[in-house]
Amino acid sequence: MDASRLTPAQMREKIRRGEWTGPTAGAAAGYTQANLVILPKELAFEFLLFCQRNPKPCPVLDVTEVGSPVPARVAPDADLRTDVPKYRVYRSGELVDETTDIQSYWSDHLVAFLLGCSFTFEQALLDNGVPVRHIEENCNVPMYRTNIDCTPAGRFSGPMVVSMRPIPHAQVVRAVQVTSRFPAVHGAPVHIGDPAAIGIEDLSKPDFGDPVTFHPGEVPVFWACGVTPQAVAMHVKPELMITHAPGHMFITDVRDEQFAVL
Amino acid sequence: MDASRLTPAQMREKIRRGEWTGPTAGAAAGYTQANLVILPKELAFEFLLFCQRNPKPCPVLDVTEVGSPVPARVAPDADLRTDVPKYRVYRSGELVDETTDIQSYWSDHLVAFLLGCSFTFEQALLDNGVPVRHIEENCNVPMYRTNIDCTPAGRFSGPMVVSMRPIPHAQVVRAVQVTSRFPAVHGAPVHIGDPAAIGIEDLSKPDFGDPVTFHPGEVPVFWACGVTPQAVAMHVKPELMITHAPGHMFITDVRDEQFAVL
Repeated sequence: MDASRLTPAQMREKIRRGEWTGPTAGAAAGYTQANLVILPKELAFEFLLFCQRNPKPCPVLDVTEVGSPVPARVAPDADLRTDVPKYRVYRSGELVDETTDIQSYWSDHLVAFLLGCSFTFEQALLDNGVPVRHIEENCNVPMYRTNIDCTPAGRFSGPMVVSMRPIPHAQVVRAVQVTSRFPAVHGAPVHIGDPAAIGIEDLSKPDFGDPVTFHPGEVPVFWACGVTPQAVAMHVKPELMITHAPGHMFITDVRDEQFAVL
Repeated sequence: MDASRLTPAQMREKIRRGEWTGPTAGAAAGYTQANLVILPKELAFEFLLFCQRNPKPCPVLDVTEVGSPVPARVAPDADLRTDVPKYRVYRSGELVDETTDIQSYWSDHLVAFLLGCSFTFEQALLDNGVPVRHIEENCNVPMYRTNIDCTPAGRFSGPMVVSMRPIPHAQVVRAVQVTSRFPAVHGAPVHIGDPAAIGIEDLSKPDFGDPVTFHPGEVPVFWACGVTPQAVAMHVKPELMITHAPGHMFITDVRDEQFAVL
């Protein structure tokens, strides 16, 4: 069975039953996947405010009611305690568990945030003939800590993390146009060209993910990355914090194109 | 002195000194003006979530830290207790005061929300040769309650309020394009044409503001309106709620064009 052809509901059912515990890239093609951050309600206002002030790294797709595991706007039939293939559980900033089901951790004082992920704009780049190197090379996107400070909110603050894609110089403008249509999934790049200008010393040594090949005439283009809010939240050392495991995303019922602003 | 030529800082200083207590339409031309809603912190998460879920009627421009009257992102030198020409103060949903200074009401458990207002996109319409009837007729924009439900968040729920502008049929598409560029100030229309389709019985009897003239060949076009969040918040009957008086807006340091997404 080709997972790319399954509907979001079918994929989530396989995941809920424990029949799918791997990464979700390419599954339920055409539907938006999301980053997950679960926090105690006493941090919810400040975290939502942090996202509102930093929409490029933290584009909010949905937030549950306090205590509800149902993302009613983007997947009303889903359950965020069981429908992500792999979770990471942190207590006071320390990883304490990696699991496929968080029902035992759930309580009615938790709030779940779903944030846009780069899969959506990468598909838009591919649809426009713009190459995406880490997909070609079948590895993780390279990610880097920058010297760009996020706008703080309450206890949340820290540097922006970016992902990088080498783009042929003749396609850089098109890459800006194509991704600008999708602010809900990181949107336009935050920087084009010189890595040093945003505090990155060596593109061959990413802070997260894998290095990728540059071809002659290609320019590094940097997008705000969904690792940012997780890193920032971790820094606060919440009593309990639960996220998806990298690459193991939540699949929504919303088609990628529905998030385009024009 | 022509107020349209003053800078935002100059206008705010006149307002702070009590030298300007009137409406702000046209003042500090080219700079974005904002709706103000001040609420107790215990409602802040739910109200921010309501705005996040209803970005067309409730486009968030800035939110202060709890207890701070400074909108640090859009006007870091301003003070929201003195820099709006006229405020309305509500206790448990009842209007108890209309005043030019709210320092005596301020406390460190309040949070101020600045939301985009239609002045910005109206200027964009005028710049594109699209007429704005209530400006031509020097009256308030007509506003109507609709049967479109906002997406609830916690205690906040209610119908969307819309503003209406008659647009010549040949310019309706352009009006959609022009306002789509500005999601931070209500953005694209929510409805074009038949008022009954969104629960409006009689265009000549607006729920707020004044009726305006239709010319032959004009189509009613409806935009989400900033009255919505005030009406919704009022319904919750907060212990204390402070807003700007209608038309007496907060003037930010941000140029209208900076809020365009493309």
